[in-house]
Amino acid sequence: MKRVMCIPNYSEGRDLDKVDKITECFRNKEKIKLIDYQPDKDHNRLVVEVIGDPRAVVEAVIESVKVASEIIDMRTHEGAHPRMGAVDVVPFVPVSEMTTEECVELANEVGKAIGDMGIPVYLYEDAATTKERKNLAKIRKGQYEGFFEKIKDPDWKPDFGPAQMNEKSGCTAVGARFHLVAFNVNLNTDRLEIADAIAKKVRHIGGGLRFVKAIGLELKDKGQVQVSMNLVNFEKTRIYQALEMVKSEARRYGLSVVNTELIGLLPLQALIDSAAYYMQIEDLKAEQVLETLLIEE
Amino acid sequence: MKRVMCIPNYSEGRDLDKVDKITECFRNKEKIKLIDYQPDKDHNRLVVEVIGDPRAVVEAVIESVKVASEIIDMRTHEGAHPRMGAVDVVPFVPVSEMTTEECVELANEVGKAIGDMGIPVYLYEDAATTKERKNLAKIRKGQYEGFFEKIKDPDWKPDFGPAQMNEKSGCTAVGARFHLVAFNVNLNTDRLEIADAIAKKVRHIGGGLRFVKAIGLELKDKGQVQVSMNLVNFEKTRIYQALEMVKSEARRYGLSVVNTELIGLLPLQALIDSAAYYMQIEDLKAEQVLETLLIEE
Repeated sequence: MKRVMCIPNYSEGRDLDKVDKITECFRNKEKIKLIDYQPDKDHNRLVVEVIGDPRAVVEAVIESVKVASEIIDMRTHEGAHPRMGAVDVVPFVPVSEMTTEECVELANEVGKAIGDMGIPVYLYEDAATTKERKNLAKIRKGQYEGFFEKIKDPDWKPDFGPAQMNEKSGCTAVGARFHLVAFNVNLNTDRLEIADAIAKKVRHIGGGLRFVKAIGLELKDKGQVQVSMNLVNFEKTRIYQALEMVKSEARRYGLSVVNTELIGLLPLQALIDSAAYYMQIEDLKAEQVLETLLIEE
Repeated sequence: MKRVMCIPNYSEGRDLDKVDKITECFRNKEKIKLIDYQPDKDHNRLVVEVIGDPRAVVEAVIESVKVASEIIDMRTHEGAHPRMGAVDVVPFVPVSEMTTEECVELANEVGKAIGDMGIPVYLYEDAATTKERKNLAKIRKGQYEGFFEKIKDPDWKPDFGPAQMNEKSGCTAVGARFHLVAFNVNLNTDRLEIADAIAKKVRHIGGGLRFVKAIGLELKDKGQVQVSMNLVNFEKTRIYQALEMVKSEARRYGLSVVNTELIGLLPLQALIDSAAYYMQIEDLKAEQVLETLLIEE
């Protein structure tokens, strides 16, 4: 079954009535599950996590944008987190039987719908239409207040909607990206320079694996160091590849892996891909995992 | 969330109206999911697979026994599969947050309820009250027709219900057992005697792992042999232990593993346990697997 995750961010984390009105768009809907939502008072921001059928998710997200653009007024918004609109950012992440390309299509559909509401929209990450727009931080630079000028720059003409700011709602970034796997490998040394050196060899920017970002960290309590990695495309660069490359670099220093950590959520397929590698399992399917039979259709 | 699997077998695989009446007990019920059911005409037998909340499963199973004992008449039953009652066998299998002991309790509860309907009940496998009753085949020996005599033997006094056969419904075996993991390891040789020798070293009966049953098989098409294993308690004897022991024995012959196969359903925890071993993952929880968030509560 096709399933997409969406993590829309709204610029309201203090007024819980308004938070309710927004999250209501995702509650008790067919083919959608509201996994979690976190209103943050300091950030004055609401992060919603929803999973479900792509069509149902798209409809609910568009509905939530309508609600948010009515009840949030950016002219009076204050908060610690950078933001440029009432609906600040809407990323689509493939979960099952979905490609990144399909998520890009969803981003375009939702982007167009938001644009039609009179709100300028920028497509980002895998949905970006120019190289400069891949990085969300670059798009958002200047924030709501700065966008009244920024939007006049031909380089920052929106992908959808009017080429002028919506005073009440600001503008919105809509994107598609892969599920990020946070994977840490702890080594039996306290020498941070070694973790740094290994991180540099493993990560893409240093000539390593295409979809790995990595840094070295010190774990003072444990007397160990850590190669802390983000795998930004677990399908193409798999967890086992990152682990094996860290091991291979660690051998240069006569070091080995003490243990590893997978932080946060992990798609089942990411686990299967690496288990199948180490155990040489041929043709293991997610549907063979008993728990997948219990998922709501 | 506590979740149990039950795979009751009914002696009716031909009359689809009756099959419907039985499976109806598991349909559209709260906290239960009817995963699959297979009526078999040759066996004249219905196998139902259901997962859910232990209380809800127990109630639905008891309801199905009432229905089956009304609509099935063993006096006219014919079929290729050995059987001793209208409800032939009711095994409970722990799926999540359940121990075998808890499944034994469920088996006792359901056994008592069936006994109270006037049907003799034998507890088997982990629920067995004597060593002779662990093995279902031993209990069922003589089948429906033979049980009219067998039940008079003091050794075969039922665990619940009357000490005489129910003519219409026969008798029933109720048990608790672990989820069985079927795991095959293929080796780069066509010499069956080597697969046999390895199977003998790996299995419990030969001095190997406590919860492994194993045989050697020839894969003629591939020019390989296979160590075909059943892991009868994947929590205590883990998949990686079986694999590593096969590898270790194979080295004696200078052989290695070509690939492996996991057949049928696999509990997520079994996959996690082995992935965590090979990847040295500390404290990986099933709830971190994204798909578990989509399971119906």
